[in-house]
Amino acid sequence: MDRLQQQMQFILEVDKLKKIMRQTYLADGSRKEEDADHSWHLALMCALLFEHAKEPIDVLKTIKMVLIHDIVEIDAGDTYAYDKSGNETKREREERAADRIFNLLPQDQAQEMRDLWEEFEAADTPESKFANTLDKVQPLMLNDASGGKSWKEHEVKETQVRARNQATADGSEILWEYADRLIRKNVENGNLIGE
Amino acid sequence: MDRLQQQMQFILEVDKLKKIMRQTYLADGSRKEEDADHSWHLALMCALLFEHAKEPIDVLKTIKMVLIHDIVEIDAGDTYAYDKSGNETKREREERAADRIFNLLPQDQAQEMRDLWEEFEAADTPESKFANTLDKVQPLMLNDASGGKSWKEHEVKETQVRARNQATADGSEILWEYADRLIRKNVENGNLIGE
Repeated sequence: MDRLQQQMQFILEVDKLKKIMRQTYLADGSRKEEDADHSWHLALMCALLFEHAKEPIDVLKTIKMVLIHDIVEIDAGDTYAYDKSGNETKREREERAADRIFNLLPQDQAQEMRDLWEEFEAADTPESKFANTLDKVQPLMLNDASGGKSWKEHEVKETQVRARNQATADGSEILWEYADRLIRKNVENGNLIGE
Repeated sequence: MDRLQQQMQFILEVDKLKKIMRQTYLADGSRKEEDADHSWHLALMCALLFEHAKEPIDVLKTIKMVLIHDIVEIDAGDTYAYDKSGNETKREREERAADRIFNLLPQDQAQEMRDLWEEFEAADTPESKFANTLDKVQPLMLNDASGGKSWKEHEVKETQVRARNQATADGSEILWEYADRLIRKNVENGNLIGE
């Protein structure tokens, strides 16, 4: 019962992920999405798109990874992709958050979740490469659907999006082709600044 | 590429799940949660609590099931647990929704998702019993955390909660014990009407 108490304490704590707002709008542009929305969407994408991974992946492991990949943002906040100074302190803030939050769990599960998060951050395994690809493609899809609403607000340039997607093909070539078409389309229609 | 287009069309369509509001409040009572929040929470609970299932379960299958279990609500809406007339037409509305939404996918995946949803609804396998247990325990946990906010708004009675949780022990005895303690606590503190 102690074990269940620890598990439920973590499960209740991470309810806060539903309040961490991202910069990406929902497809219909009605509001920004939050981290729990985003994590659910990635998990479902993984369940459906795993066949497009560049290397064979363990689907369950990858789904677990995307379910918890943003949990550190409960303490560290969402750092916008194109916020330079925020990204300089991101790793340190997120490590402190990982120490606190994952350690609410029983030790074996705390270690499992911490390892999954570190693997996602390192992006050096088939699973973490594919998870990172999904994490890049999902906001591209939503930005395209919402008419580039978030890109326009932040005056985002094509070069910034391409720099951020440098490794997207490492997880899936076919998903990178899909993403590349969306980028080109949105430069053409003026949602992204073509420079 | 046709296959990927079908998959992405479904993935974009189900973005609407983020707008289907439930009656349960977040733990801090600040707003009601929506179906994508709830589905993410259940998937993570499944990844952590599967060891408490009454019978051994296929964790990946169960996670997929909870990720898609509410997708029919995009068309059919969320039917509140204690809404009697709404529950009379629920099945018919949800079947029509399943026909439309899952069939956006390539045929093999449309069938897989439809089968998972039907299995969840029937609740007659180890996986679907456990998924249904999570689906009952998660709102109990949030209602308790928010001081019974949703229960008070709807003047919910203990007998209604117990009737709704008739099968919770079928998925996990230890999670039912946890739920039963929460129910008793919330009758004692007046968040639930003790009749």
